[in-house]
Amino acid sequence: MAVFDLDGLVYGLGMGGIAVFAISGALEAARKEMDILGFILIGSVTGLGGGTLRDLLLGLAPVYWVRDPLNVGICLGAAVATYFVVPLINSRIRALIWMDALGLSLFCVTGTQIALSQGVAPLIAVCMGVMTATFGGIIRDVLCGVSLVLQGRELYVTAAVAGASAYLGLYLAPVPEALALLGGFAVAFGLRGAAILFGLMLPSYQARDRG
Amino acid sequence: MAVFDLDGLVYGLGMGGIAVFAISGALEAARKEMDILGFILIGSVTGLGGGTLRDLLLGLAPVYWVRDPLNVGICLGAAVATYFVVPLINSRIRALIWMDALGLSLFCVTGTQIALSQGVAPLIAVCMGVMTATFGGIIRDVLCGVSLVLQGRELYVTAAVAGASAYLGLYLAPVPEALALLGGFAVAFGLRGAAILFGLMLPSYQARDRG
Amino acid sequence: MAVFDLDGLVYGLGMGGIAVFAISGALEAARKEMDILGFILIGSVTGLGGGTLRDLLLGLAPVYWVRDPLNVGICLGAAVATYFVVPLINSRIRALIWMDALGLSLFCVTGTQIALSQGVAPLIAVCMGVMTATFGGIIRDVLCGVSLVLQGRELYVTAAVAGASAYLGLYLAPVPEALALLGGFAVAFGLRGAAILFGLMLPSYQARDRG
Repeated sequence: MAVFDLDGLVYGLGMGGIAVFAISGALEAARKEMDILGFILIGSVTGLGGGTLRDLLLGLAPVYWVRDPLNVGICLGAAVATYFVVPLINSRIRALIWMDALGLSLFCVTGTQIALSQGVAPLIAVCMGVMTATFGGIIRDVLCGVSLVLQGRELYVTAAVAGASAYLGLYLAPVPEALALLGGFAVAFGLRGAAILFGLMLPSYQARDRG
Repeated sequence: MAVFDLDGLVYGLGMGGIAVFAISGALEAARKEMDILGFILIGSVTGLGGGTLRDLLLGLAPVYWVRDPLNVGICLGAAVATYFVVPLINSRIRALIWMDALGLSLFCVTGTQIALSQGVAPLIAVCMGVMTATFGGIIRDVLCGVSLVLQGRELYVTAAVAGASAYLGLYLAPVPEALALLGGFAVAFGLRGAAILFGLMLPSYQARDRG
Repeated sequence: MAVFDLDGLVYGLGMGGIAVFAISGALEAARKEMDILGFILIGSVTGLGGGTLRDLLLGLAPVYWVRDPLNVGICLGAAVATYFVVPLINSRIRALIWMDALGLSLFCVTGTQIALSQGVAPLIAVCMGVMTATFGGIIRDVLCGVSLVLQGRELYVTAAVAGASAYLGLYLAPVPEALALLGGFAVAFGLRGAAILFGLMLPSYQARDRG
């Protein structure tokens, strides 16, 4: 007995994830002093980049936002709205980090789910989840010329790997799909959130070398 | 009664657009003091990058230049020729800007046209046109490590958006295809050309913030 | 009379090439002081990036490592192993350069071979070989923010072009496939190796201009 519409919820969460990623991209465009089209472009690439790479690699073409243009509309709306409300946000960087954490946690789980639905091996599914969650941010950072999510960001990719793996484990276990999705999201967001609050990091290579 | 071969004209314009983009890429390679293979690589990526991304996202694989190698030959020829005639060009940057404007105006229209022929939604078609026109230049700038087309370039993406939208509007209106193509091109080139001549820009975010 | 299993050899060489590219990526991650997930990400992108682009452009999706996850396992293993043995390597840069040369020479030949098996034109096949060999390194350099393989690297792309072209020539000539593969590899590795040892370079554009 389904007490709610799981597919609808996942769809809505996906749109939410795309919106928060697009906002994080638009906030980066604000820091680089771009014009409104720069906000839209960086916002869209950040919002749609991870899922686009996943679809291309899995052979799911045309990619999801060509099939469902609402995804693009969400990015446009989020980027334009951000352009007009940034001045109202006092601590932009803090907001960007937490929005990024939400999108990261959503996408690592839904990306893994979509890959599994294509019948790929478990390792590949986790890779796809991690890519879906992190690739948009990587492109954003490359385009904006800022230091990568790959360097000195607290348990960023780690959280995506943990969330994707947790979802995979729950997916393989006999638990309801909704619980698996929630569990994966909770693991990723808990880990990333704790890392933000307490400054947790994996040791960087050089630090370990000196130790 | 067709008085000229529209498909042939569009094909020729496409080759011309690829050539001018490849030249703009090769001129950037010259400024970064690359060797002749760097000219060819940056020229080819700039010339073919936008259409390649469009084809991949639409699921048109193998991509167009794999199906029609003449596109690659044009890039090779344009890049090699540029390598030998750069010293003859006095104002390289000026030439680069105007060639870039030609390619931009051509590709935003033909990219939208190709996307529409695949039956995508109007919003997606405009996105594809804009991407076809700007993605080659974005990759060129990322590879060459110069400031992005996304920052401080006069109505660059704006012109592509306007040209793609104008073509879309004319495509939906009862006007001949050739007129729609010409109209879209004229809007994009007129806007970008005026912006180059008169230094028109969208306000950057920070400038608006201070204002 | 086949005295050995050519397909198996090519498969093994491919895995070896992926491993050395992944190690070269991981060594770059070490120089940028990334954490172990950075090693894995940069290693995997360097190891798999060239072939991934080739597959996408040829329309071979899902891409090869989705179909055969061992490729990903090799990258993970090579990157993690590198993380723990880097301190034992005295001259990291020297090791990176030679490993890179091995991967370059392997991939320019096997990439061309795969493209030819898809029935593309000879020019396109050589392009695919060169891309397979160099794109992983280009992405690595973009992500790590170091100077590109496109600038000031001794006969790097040149060696890939020569190796891919040599393989193509031998493939079209009536010689056994194994000999064609070996010949292409030898041309690429010989050229790149000689260039490393003797500092051979193509003239950069500016140098020629001043000469």
